[in-house]
Amino acid sequence: MKYSEMTKAELEQEYKGVLAQFEACKSKNLKLNMARGKPSKVQLDIANGLLNALQEGEECFVDGVDARNYGELSGLPCAKEYWADILDCKPSQIFVGGTSSLNFMFDIISKAFSHGLLHSVRPWCKEDVVKFLCPSPGYDRHFRVTEFFGAELITVPMTENGPDMDLVEQLVKDPQVKGIWCVPKYSNPDGIIYSEETINRFANLKPAAPDFTIMWDNAYGVHEFEGEYVPFPDILSLCEKAGNPDMVYEFASTSKITFAGAGFSAMATSESNIKYLTKMFGVQMISQDKINQLRHVRFLKDKAHTLEIMKQHASVMGPKFGVVADALDKEIKPLGFAQWNRPKGGYFVSFNAMPGTAKRALDLCKEAGVEMTPAGATYPYGIDPQDSNIRIAPSLPPIPELEQAMDVFCTCVKLAALEKLLAI
Amino acid sequence: MKYSEMTKAELEQEYKGVLAQFEACKSKNLKLNMARGKPSKVQLDIANGLLNALQEGEECFVDGVDARNYGELSGLPCAKEYWADILDCKPSQIFVGGTSSLNFMFDIISKAFSHGLLHSVRPWCKEDVVKFLCPSPGYDRHFRVTEFFGAELITVPMTENGPDMDLVEQLVKDPQVKGIWCVPKYSNPDGIIYSEETINRFANLKPAAPDFTIMWDNAYGVHEFEGEYVPFPDILSLCEKAGNPDMVYEFASTSKITFAGAGFSAMATSESNIKYLTKMFGVQMISQDKINQLRHVRFLKDKAHTLEIMKQHASVMGPKFGVVADALDKEIKPLGFAQWNRPKGGYFVSFNAMPGTAKRALDLCKEAGVEMTPAGATYPYGIDPQDSNIRIAPSLPPIPELEQAMDVFCTCVKLAALEKLLAI
Repeated sequence: MKYSEMTKAELEQEYKGVLAQFEACKSKNLKLNMARGKPSKVQLDIANGLLNALQEGEECFVDGVDARNYGELSGLPCAKEYWADILDCKPSQIFVGGTSSLNFMFDIISKAFSHGLLHSVRPWCKEDVVKFLCPSPGYDRHFRVTEFFGAELITVPMTENGPDMDLVEQLVKDPQVKGIWCVPKYSNPDGIIYSEETINRFANLKPAAPDFTIMWDNAYGVHEFEGEYVPFPDILSLCEKAGNPDMVYEFASTSKITFAGAGFSAMATSESNIKYLTKMFGVQMISQDKINQLRHVRFLKDKAHTLEIMKQHASVMGPKFGVVADALDKEIKPLGFAQWNRPKGGYFVSFNAMPGTAKRALDLCKEAGVEMTPAGATYPYGIDPQDSNIRIAPSLPPIPELEQAMDVFCTCVKLAALEKLLAI
Repeated sequence: MKYSEMTKAELEQEYKGVLAQFEACKSKNLKLNMARGKPSKVQLDIANGLLNALQEGEECFVDGVDARNYGELSGLPCAKEYWADILDCKPSQIFVGGTSSLNFMFDIISKAFSHGLLHSVRPWCKEDVVKFLCPSPGYDRHFRVTEFFGAELITVPMTENGPDMDLVEQLVKDPQVKGIWCVPKYSNPDGIIYSEETINRFANLKPAAPDFTIMWDNAYGVHEFEGEYVPFPDILSLCEKAGNPDMVYEFASTSKITFAGAGFSAMATSESNIKYLTKMFGVQMISQDKINQLRHVRFLKDKAHTLEIMKQHASVMGPKFGVVADALDKEIKPLGFAQWNRPKGGYFVSFNAMPGTAKRALDLCKEAGVEMTPAGATYPYGIDPQDSNIRIAPSLPPIPELEQAMDVFCTCVKLAALEKLLAI
C-alpha cells in the first residue's frame, strides 16, 4: 500500500517496523561506500594489460617520436587518432590531456577567467558578472569549478531528453551567460541520453555572449552496461554546420575504461580553438605523459576494441545496477513516495526521495555505516531546493555488500519519509 | 692572439678565414639541435626499467591503497617519502604532482593570481601591479609563466654565488614585489650552486608583501655530472627557523632522471601551505597518476639508489660537457672576447658572447643548420640588454654531432664578433 493512502495509525505501525529494521541495520556495524563513481577491483583488473603494454625502450618509438622524451604538446599522433575514432571527429580537433579530464576542464575555465577564450572580448575575471548554466541534477565537481572562479550558477532543470532547452535558449540571450555544463550521454546522475533534438538545439544556440562555451563532458560515451553501444552524434560537426564552430569543448577520458585517475584524457574542439589554446598550454608545460598515451593506444587499440573491453565492464556493472533496481522495485515502488531512473549506461542511479527528506535519509545511512554522495551535491552550491535528489553510485562495492547497502538505503529513505509524514 | 689586440688588417685577415670556415660549415647541410635540455636516447635507456616496474594488478596495492583507483589527492605515502628523502624534508611537506613540475609551478602562480596564496590580502589579479624578480640569466619558461599573468618582470643580476642578494633585499621592501624565481643548484643556465650565505639570506628575507613567494625550482638537485653528489641545505627548515615558514615553494621532478615529460614531480612546502592548496587542488582533480608514482618509487627506490642512477647519467653527460669545454678552450679562449662557466652539474653552459653579437651569432648558427636556444631567452621578456648571453644545451646530440655543432657554434660567435669589430 502507498504511504499516501495509509491512515495515521497505519503509518505509525509502518514507522515502528522500519525503525526496528534501521536498528537492525545499525547493529551490523557496516562500513560501505556508495559515494563516488569509483570502479571496482574486478573492473580495474580488466585493464591490467595496460601495465605491461610497453616493456622495452625500443617500443616507445612511434610516429617518428621517442615517447620517453619532451615534445608533442598536443599529444602523440596515434593518441589523437584514437580519440578521434572514439569521439567521431578529426585528429586535428583533438588535444590529448593528462590523466584527469576534470583537470582539463578546470584549465579551460581557468584560462577563460584569466585570459579569455578565442572570442572573448575580455577575460571573464574582468566581467561584472559571469553566469554559468548548470543542468540539475548534475555533477557537483563541474559546478564547483565555475563556483571556484566566482561564477553565478544558474540551475536548469533536466527533462527526460536532457536540459530544458526552452529555458536554455531563453537564458543565453543574456550576454553575461557564458556557458553551460553538459554530460550528454548517460548524464550524471540521471543516466539520460540527450535526444537528437536537444543536441541539435545546442548546436544551433544563438547566445548573446560571443564566447559562450558548451562544456560537453562526454564522460560515459562508451559506457553501456545494458544492451548494445548507442551511437551518438558528433557535436563538433553539428556546431560547425550551425555556424558555431568554436562554441563547444568536448571532453572524455579512460578513467572508467582503464584505471581511475591513471587513464588518459582528451579535449575535442575546433582547430581554431586548439590553435588558440595550444599557445597558452605552451606556457605551462612542455608535453603531457606520452608514455601513458602510448600504453593506452597499444592496449585499447581503437574504438572497436575499446567497445569489446566495455562489454567486460558491462558484465560487472550490469548486475550491480540490477541489484539497485531490484531493491528499489521491491522495497520502495509499492510505497509510491519516490521516483528513480533505470539507465542503461553510465555510473549512477538518480533517486528522488520524498521532498524534504534526502538530507535526513543520508544522515541515517551514515549512522548505519553507509556512505553516500551528500544530499544536495547534484545541485549548484550543494543546495537541492527540494531536498529530494540522491545519487546512488553502485560501482564500487561487491554485490553482497551492495545488497546490504541497498537494504540500508531503502530502510533509511522509508524512515525519513515516515518521520516527515508523521512530523516526528 | 686576442681580438682586442689585433690590428684592423689582422682582424680582416681573421674574418676572411672564419668566413671560409662558416661557408664550409654551411656546405655540410647539418641539422643539429642544442636548443633545449633534452636528455639523449642513451640517458632515456637508463630508465627503461621503469617501463616494466609494475607488471601485475596485485603489485599496485601499496600503503593500503589500490594505485589503480581514485584517491590520495596529495600522492601515495611512499611517493611522499621518496621526495622527502630526495629533498631532505618531511613527507607531510610534500604534495606529489603529475609529470610536469613546470605545470605545477604554473598552477601555483595561477592560483596566486585567481585566488591568492595563504597570506594574500587579495588575489594578485586584484593588485594594481604585481612585480616578480627574475635572476638573469635564468630560465625562460619561469619568466614566461609570470609574464603570462601580467606580472612586471624585474631583472636581478646573477653573481657567482647566486642572485645579487643586496639587490633582492632592497627590492622586497616594495610590497608589490610578490616573489622570485630560483634554480638554486646548478642554476639554469649558469650552473651555479647558490652559496650557503645566499640561501640563508633568502630564508631570512623580510619582504613587505605578506605573501611573498620564493619559487625554488630544485630542478637539478641530484644532477652532478662531475665529482660526487653535493649536499644542499633544506630551504624549508631554514625558512621555518627564520620565521618565514610559508614563504617558499620548492619543486623537483624526475624529468631528467627517468623520462623527460613522463617522470613525476613534487612540491615541498609548509604543512600550512599544503593544507591551503589541497583544498584548491581538490576542485580541479580527484588524484594525480598514482600508477606512475608507484612505478617511479619501485624503480628509483630512494635517494641512495637515485644517486646511483645519476652516476650513469653522469657517465653520458660528463663527456658531452667535456666536448663543449674543450671546443671553447681551444677555439675561443685564446681570442679573449667571450666568457663562460664550467659547471659540474645541471644541463647547460652559459656563454657570454661579445656584447651585441649573441643574436647575430645564433642567426648564423641557424643558417649553418645548428638550432640553439634563442638569444635573449635567458632574460625577462626575451630581451638580453647586452645581447650577449647564449645557453648551450649539449645533452641531446651524440658526441660526434655535438663536436660538429660546437665547431659551427665557435665559428659563428667568432664571425659575429668580427663583423661587429669590423662594423660589417
